[in-house]
Amino acid sequence: MNTELTADAIGRVLVVGAGTMGRQIALQCALHGLAVDLYDTSPDALAAAHNEINILAASFARHGRLSPAEATAAAARVAPTSDLPAAAARADLVSESVPEDPALKGRIFAQLNELCPPRTVFTTNSSTLLPSMFAAATGRPERFAALHFHLPPWDANVVDVMAHSDTAPEIVALLVAFAHHIGQIPIVARHESSGYVFNAMLSALNGAALKLAAEGVADVADIDRAWMGIMKTPIGPFGIMDMIGLETIWTITDFWATTLGDRGLRANADFVRGYLDRGRQGRKNGHGFYDYPHPAFAADGFLEG
Amino acid sequence: MNTELTADAIGRVLVVGAGTMGRQIALQCALHGLAVDLYDTSPDALAAAHNEINILAASFARHGRLSPAEATAAAARVAPTSDLPAAAARADLVSESVPEDPALKGRIFAQLNELCPPRTVFTTNSSTLLPSMFAAATGRPERFAALHFHLPPWDANVVDVMAHSDTAPEIVALLVAFAHHIGQIPIVARHESSGYVFNAMLSALNGAALKLAAEGVADVADIDRAWMGIMKTPIGPFGIMDMIGLETIWTITDFWATTLGDRGLRANADFVRGYLDRGRQGRKNGHGFYDYPHPAFAADGFLEG
Repeated sequence: MNTELTADAIGRVLVVGAGTMGRQIALQCALHGLAVDLYDTSPDALAAAHNEINILAASFARHGRLSPAEATAAAARVAPTSDLPAAAARADLVSESVPEDPALKGRIFAQLNELCPPRTVFTTNSSTLLPSMFAAATGRPERFAALHFHLPPWDANVVDVMAHSDTAPEIVALLVAFAHHIGQIPIVARHESSGYVFNAMLSALNGAALKLAAEGVADVADIDRAWMGIMKTPIGPFGIMDMIGLETIWTITDFWATTLGDRGLRANADFVRGYLDRGRQGRKNGHGFYDYPHPAFAADGFLEG
Repeated sequence: MNTELTADAIGRVLVVGAGTMGRQIALQCALHGLAVDLYDTSPDALAAAHNEINILAASFARHGRLSPAEATAAAARVAPTSDLPAAAARADLVSESVPEDPALKGRIFAQLNELCPPRTVFTTNSSTLLPSMFAAATGRPERFAALHFHLPPWDANVVDVMAHSDTAPEIVALLVAFAHHIGQIPIVARHESSGYVFNAMLSALNGAALKLAAEGVADVADIDRAWMGIMKTPIGPFGIMDMIGLETIWTITDFWATTLGDRGLRANADFVRGYLDRGRQGRKNGHGFYDYPHPAFAADGFLEG
């Protein structure tokens, strides 16, 4: 094992999976000067990712976060590809964002283990699975850990670094240095925990907000208003859940309601289901707890009711 | 019943209980031009309250929130008193902040019912009890509801308005108007719920943060860092718990751990107990999860770790 590896040694990242998270992770790395291969099996996903990355980079320039030249250069550092062997052969670090199925993740890492050089560090962006669930399948467990991003990484710039029991300490140290290198605040978990750190807290907040609404204590807008008014945040839990997507919120809530046999969680899941049944998926289809692009909570005077 | 009563008709407020909450509620009313009688049975509490109100008003002037003349006038509008009959006789609205004991609250309101004119509206600032628990004891249940403040009310300017089943609708409407009149955002609960609205969400967030720390997933500073880094707030859950006070956090957590027989909550309570056993009570004695007056989370570079 190369124990000399530092964040500077990671010049090229392979992002596997070009969905929402993979796209944003790829762009975040590119914004900090890294070359990125963005791999997906779906040509449509790659084309959509390429398009979205250009749109995001252009919006950074429009909002003055970057010069137009910097934005163009950052987007150009992301190379969408369907050639996994070529991309794997040059990767210093892999960030995997495929669906949350440990068997699928294990198969992909096993394939990457054959294709990548020995130096390549493997990371999963899973937010619900533990790295130990598929560490052995990676074929290089000592060079594997979770590096879990939040969206969008240029604003919500915190990453969980979660090792499993066989991750080498120097790999944890490398991932901490790498996180700083790409503008992220690393939170190192002392041991595995399926809720990670921030997500465990956000889930608790969202669950309490859903319970208040499901039990009819207060309506969605008043619940967000109470949170925003005291915490002085521009968004409350229902606005955040609209960003996450109501299908995702329902899936997680339904899973735990079933797993724990908890009636309160079941009522929360049913409350979200009611919105989904009326075609309200959240921000992504323009209708969730609020209507977009001009949700009530963002309007002047919202706090005053 | 006087159905003509509007917020303008409330010119004089009687705050019963001169502890931390009563003092701040009294000052908040005075800042908005109301005359306030602040009653307590303890001369020491009254003297301390008088002193603190003057200090707070002076600090508003020092920070430019008010002119010195306005600050002096506001503090002067609060009259500490131990003469309950005289104060009750002129009260348009009572705000009660005595200890969280429904029998005690009921006895005090029964006494006030004899002393106050029929027009006086009764409110409790309870954050854990339901108004229905002592509505009958007030002798005027139709003119009684919870009006629950958050601290400090000039910043955390949200109040829960929680009626019980016999509160008259015009009293709810009056309390909403009164809340706006004193610079508060009213959140009207549709029915009684012991966690109120904001507190139910904050408790869930704090519980999740404690669980992460009690289980050793991450340390206190990293947990706050994750929250602050993503939510962009100047304080995280452990900093907030230091403001609330660790004795209060322990009491609530211990109560629910026992009531629900929940092992996770018991571990959370024990985690807080460990700090209390080391003499760490939170911000009020200078040592809690952090050390004051310069807690680590408020230092430059905290987010970067």
